[in-house]
Amino acid sequence: MPFVIFHNKADQKPLSEEARIKIGLLTNAEILDISTLNNNSLVPATEVIKKVIPPSAYLKPSLFEGMIRPKDLVLLVTPIDSEAPEGRMILPQQMAIRDVLDQDALCLVVKETELQDVFDRGLKPALVVTDSQAFGMVSKIVPEDIPLTGFSVLFARIRANFDLYLKGTHKLSELKTGDRVLILESCSHHVSCDDIGRVKLPKWISEFSGKGIQFDVVAGQDPIPGSMTDYALVVQCGVCVVTQKQLAGRLKPAVEAGIPVTNYGLSIAYMNGVFDRAVAPLSLKTTEQ
Amino acid sequence: MPFVIFHNKADQKPLSEEARIKIGLLTNAEILDISTLNNNSLVPATEVIKKVIPPSAYLKPSLFEGMIRPKDLVLLVTPIDSEAPEGRMILPQQMAIRDVLDQDALCLVVKETELQDVFDRGLKPALVVTDSQAFGMVSKIVPEDIPLTGFSVLFARIRANFDLYLKGTHKLSELKTGDRVLILESCSHHVSCDDIGRVKLPKWISEFSGKGIQFDVVAGQDPIPGSMTDYALVVQCGVCVVTQKQLAGRLKPAVEAGIPVTNYGLSIAYMNGVFDRAVAPLSLKTTEQ
Repeated sequence: MPFVIFHNKADQKPLSEEARIKIGLLTNAEILDISTLNNNSLVPATEVIKKVIPPSAYLKPSLFEGMIRPKDLVLLVTPIDSEAPEGRMILPQQMAIRDVLDQDALCLVVKETELQDVFDRGLKPALVVTDSQAFGMVSKIVPEDIPLTGFSVLFARIRANFDLYLKGTHKLSELKTGDRVLILESCSHHVSCDDIGRVKLPKWISEFSGKGIQFDVVAGQDPIPGSMTDYALVVQCGVCVVTQKQLAGRLKPAVEAGIPVTNYGLSIAYMNGVFDRAVAPLSLKTTEQ
Repeated sequence: MPFVIFHNKADQKPLSEEARIKIGLLTNAEILDISTLNNNSLVPATEVIKKVIPPSAYLKPSLFEGMIRPKDLVLLVTPIDSEAPEGRMILPQQMAIRDVLDQDALCLVVKETELQDVFDRGLKPALVVTDSQAFGMVSKIVPEDIPLTGFSVLFARIRANFDLYLKGTHKLSELKTGDRVLILESCSHHVSCDDIGRVKLPKWISEFSGKGIQFDVVAGQDPIPGSMTDYALVVQCGVCVVTQKQLAGRLKPAVEAGIPVTNYGLSIAYMNGVFDRAVAPLSLKTTEQ
């Protein structure tokens, strides 16, 4: 674990040369004389901290980085169902709106029921992002020449295991009767996750595969029942609330056991026949990174 | 204080006729036999509660009600400054986006730096709403024939004292040297409020009036220093975080003392010479209500 050493109250008494030498015998960590009464300490203190922590700790990845340009019109399709918080937008939608603005682009937000009106007005967005649950309807309305992806696909790209997801999703076509599918929810507080993970996804996967599939749903940090090798596929939720590191840790047993992994959004896109389309807008990053 | 009487565990033993008669001698309140084990109790229980509480307790007022129609394009101008929460939208903006969607309209969100691009694209929004701090810049870019108002003007309309605000704002033109202005912030946690209330508004009001004005800033539920009659004007913040009732209570002493009251957004609109324009989109409601 990297660390730095701050000697505070330098305004009262600076760290002696003798103390510096003694500390130097124990560690190579950087030593900084600071005073919290003195604003001048803030910049050098931040700089030494930055030197020892990974950039991912302070650089937030951008959802749209490399995908949109300034002044682009970006269209977000955000169905409002009974599970949406009253009078607000859910976090992934909020984060996407903010990221579009941070990229100096224009952000158009509509429900799926007003999506057709966007095109009736002659607007041609540079990119459309939809709630993954609406992939089926949205992909029929958005003209083929306009890039389309999903919120959870965007989040999957900036989190972890995206390349594994891309490969793992195809397993949905190979499921056999008796296969077990593990559905992992990261949040334990979000009602709509229950709904998608516990009801809709098992139903959709069963219908899509046409096979008798068993499902286990595990929320938050709950233990996985049985052995990871019991599962034919792991489907991870959109993980709007956990860090990249938490997600990587959560999926590590599956990855190490060679079990295909995918996520909600990519699965739904795949089962709606729009997997290639939903992934295409991200290909710049995934191939060039 | 209106109330209703629930007799629970009706599944075990219904309320006796004798008990009903005894209660009836004490109060006319409605009595309902319920069982929390029985979902059938939920609807009638909700109905009797609704009968005795004011509709404002369960009907959330809409920011845009009566101002926009389904399929309208509504443009929100949301500057992102250093005080904005990282990766998110501030609450009033979130609430406005959601309300536009709830009205089946299309919501375009841009920073003030991309506002010109909206019109360069030939788009003609039915309504433009701006962060009040950007009224000066935004009112110059938005063509005169497009209705323009501010987030805090919208919030003022659905909260309380809007008619008083409309009258009180003009006091800004009549301030005299030595006058005291009371600035009321409702939130105590929101950094940007500090900034507007403590720094920008006093500066703007001083410049606009050209007089030597004294300012007191009071946050949250802190007591008002001295007597309300010491003040020539009260300027209330946008109050995104308090209820209509809390706001009415907060302003009551000023209203009763006949002190002019206004709010941040209307004041900023007024001092930028766009008061009439910012109020015009709301006139339907304020005159017909």
